[in-house]
Amino acid sequence: MNKLNFLLIGTGAVGSYYMGKISRAGVHITSLSITDYEIIKKKGIQINSINKDFKFIPDKTIKSTSEYLLIPDYIIIATKALPEIDVIAMIKNIIHKKTTIVLLQNGIDIETKIFNAYPDNEVISGLAYITVNKIAPATINHQANGWLVIGKYPNGISKKTKLLSKIFNEAGVQCTLEKDINLARWKKLIWNASYNVISVLGGGLTTKEMTQSKEINSLITGIMKEVILLADKSGYKIDESLIDEYINFTSKMPANKTSMLLDYENKRPMEVEAILGNTIKMAKKINMAVPHLESLYPLLKTINQKNRKN
Amino acid sequence: MNKLNFLLIGTGAVGSYYMGKISRAGVHITSLSITDYEIIKKKGIQINSINKDFKFIPDKTIKSTSEYLLIPDYIIIATKALPEIDVIAMIKNIIHKKTTIVLLQNGIDIETKIFNAYPDNEVISGLAYITVNKIAPATINHQANGWLVIGKYPNGISKKTKLLSKIFNEAGVQCTLEKDINLARWKKLIWNASYNVISVLGGGLTTKEMTQSKEINSLITGIMKEVILLADKSGYKIDESLIDEYINFTSKMPANKTSMLLDYENKRPMEVEAILGNTIKMAKKINMAVPHLESLYPLLKTINQKNRKN
Repeated sequence: MNKLNFLLIGTGAVGSYYMGKISRAGVHITSLSITDYEIIKKKGIQINSINKDFKFIPDKTIKSTSEYLLIPDYIIIATKALPEIDVIAMIKNIIHKKTTIVLLQNGIDIETKIFNAYPDNEVISGLAYITVNKIAPATINHQANGWLVIGKYPNGISKKTKLLSKIFNEAGVQCTLEKDINLARWKKLIWNASYNVISVLGGGLTTKEMTQSKEINSLITGIMKEVILLADKSGYKIDESLIDEYINFTSKMPANKTSMLLDYENKRPMEVEAILGNTIKMAKKINMAVPHLESLYPLLKTINQKNRKN
Repeated sequence: MNKLNFLLIGTGAVGSYYMGKISRAGVHITSLSITDYEIIKKKGIQINSINKDFKFIPDKTIKSTSEYLLIPDYIIIATKALPEIDVIAMIKNIIHKKTTIVLLQNGIDIETKIFNAYPDNEVISGLAYITVNKIAPATINHQANGWLVIGKYPNGISKKTKLLSKIFNEAGVQCTLEKDINLARWKKLIWNASYNVISVLGGGLTTKEMTQSKEINSLITGIMKEVILLADKSGYKIDESLIDEYINFTSKMPANKTSMLLDYENKRPMEVEAILGNTIKMAKKINMAVPHLESLYPLLKTINQKNRKN
């Protein structure tokens, strides 16, 4: 059997870690990177892992899809979910009918556009529960083990989903299949729309500072309730007991900075639209008021813009 | 006629400016200051005014009410409206039955405690529409003319209110009488609970930055609507047209920093409780949801605490 061709778009922490893991598992990986192209081509990507450090050396490193001459089996999109990154245009000239598009990104309703743009291609949506951070060009810190959840978008489990999951698991990445990936996204959103957002808007709060403040706890609960209600009205039933679960889980964490707070502090763009903007749009479509989210979104958007200007 | 005895508590911008103006008008003013006591005693308070600079030299400067040996006709409370400043205890040993308590402070429902603590004393509540800032110890900048609104608390216009207004007007301070001072407070709160709060939570926004952002404008409108509805349910009818008035007025301002933003940037305490905390308490009493305010309050409270620790 020929090696499967993977094209990784986005050599941030998540993409680099997962592709690094499977790069030893008989697949051919091309990585596309604009900012870190030179260093990756020369040295690969260094992964400092709590398990065992390793180096991810892509089979090929490119700067633009115009250099890509293969037929991709899987295009792994692991950039941040940002409106200014036009993945649809980026892959236009290289996508083949057999290509599966895999989105490893945060947020809600991030699949629709690419799903509609390439109706003949299978789209797999994935969520990474892992603590990895890019700490320098082509250098990733892997701080806590986690797992990957993937499912066919908008729902179901396909052959290609199973094959991808098998590749991950055989390479030591715990990957589970999810028939209803949207439901999983809503669940993850509940944490992201509350803790991630409040950690920034509260002036730089760790998870410990958030769980120890009565007022912040009550706000977090309010946001979570709002998202759960919206999910419900959008057809995804989530039990409210998840709120207590999340709060308990978070209060037992060490004093972590959320990924959004790290983005903010490092002057990187935050996923404002994927986390809050899209959520509010979905609420508007069904005429539901989400006053907590509507209060937070303009603040986060404004802070994000100011932060990037500085 | 003997000179009227005024005791000024709080030598910040508002108190210093207004008492400075009337100090030349045949009243006896004692100023109580803890932090600026030495410099005021020695040199008085410098007022740099857009009209004409002047010096406010109190007839007496004290550090504690235990030094106060007169019978005060008016106690002017011009400290910030902060929970940690216990004015009730401060004036306990010097208040006389003929003393009128005058509150020149921001916020809503800031009079109840002192009104209940001294039921035999008249309480006058006042709102200062003026741009003054303390820029250094015993140094005030007066940047824009405005006016003073006073009324008997909880409502009405008394002899003592009229007398006070006369003293101000004769000293060149435009002072109008207001039969329903609570209504005036609600109206001022509408601006403060929106623009002041958002200027801080939005990461340090000027009035221009706020009025020029579509999202922030829409949030400001949402907050204002909430406060107007709460005022309505609390018995104070305010027409929603005030929202457009305020937005127009604010958009025509130069790029000002709000007083709360100046407090934040100068690591001074912000009036979180007087502006948001009390408002939310009033909403809770009548079981009204104020989700915008409830989203903003925990954030502002947390940022205020962090700011003061630093």
